[in-house]
Amino acid sequence: MSAQSRRKSTAPKLRGRVWVEIGGAPALTEAGADLLEQIEAWQSLSEAARRLRFGYRRAWMLLDAMNRRWPEPLVETTTGGKRGGGSRLTEKGLLVLRAFRDLQLQAETLLDHATGPFRMSTRS
Amino acid sequence: MSAQSRRKSTAPKLRGRVWVEIGGAPALTEAGADLLEQIEAWQSLSEAARRLRFGYRRAWMLLDAMNRRWPEPLVETTTGGKRGGGSRLTEKGLLVLRAFRDLQLQAETLLDHATGPFRMSTRS
Repeated sequence: MSAQSRRKSTAPKLRGRVWVEIGGAPALTEAGADLLEQIEAWQSLSEAARRLRFGYRRAWMLLDAMNRRWPEPLVETTTGGKRGGGSRLTEKGLLVLRAFRDLQLQAETLLDHATGPFRMSTRS
Repeated sequence: MSAQSRRKSTAPKLRGRVWVEIGGAPALTEAGADLLEQIEAWQSLSEAARRLRFGYRRAWMLLDAMNRRWPEPLVETTTGGKRGGGSRLTEKGLLVLRAFRDLQLQAETLLDHATGPFRMSTRS
């Protein structure tokens, strides 16, 4: 290990995680937000699951839990029709996803700015 | 369940967690900060563990992991002497603990202020 990589490995790094709970249960997590984002991009739960390398069952259960925990669904699924149905975010789903991404960004900014004190050294 | 408690149970609550990693491993967590704080208050690891209802072994291992991960120890332990030894935070330990508590407060403030968008309703 080089001196540089050794120095890097002892640099403290601030980490953080945010999520939304409803009634004490997770209603939106980082994985859930990723799933919503991919559903919005592909209008398809199975394609969203593939892109995230989630098993379809895992993706379905994650989405079902989110839809049940919020007072109104975040995703609506249409069946049949010429294009064989699909999934898309409701207006509420879009608002919640955007607010969550914004919150994640604010949290990252906070952690970036707060790193200073953890870098201090007895040399100073 | 009353109408009021039902309404409360569907109110989204933002949650968050912050921690410090060094070399990819946790170097200071919320439990670790609690332990440091109690060590500072009681100048004793065993009393700190008791107050937190941590098993002594768990507290000792948590402290040992923190001390080993930071470039310099956060806690120093003295043995023997008239009062039978004890543990106390090093200058670095005090600085790290204060910076972490400050970060936790900032994160809480961020979550409190960010709750608004998650409360939105189709009624609005």
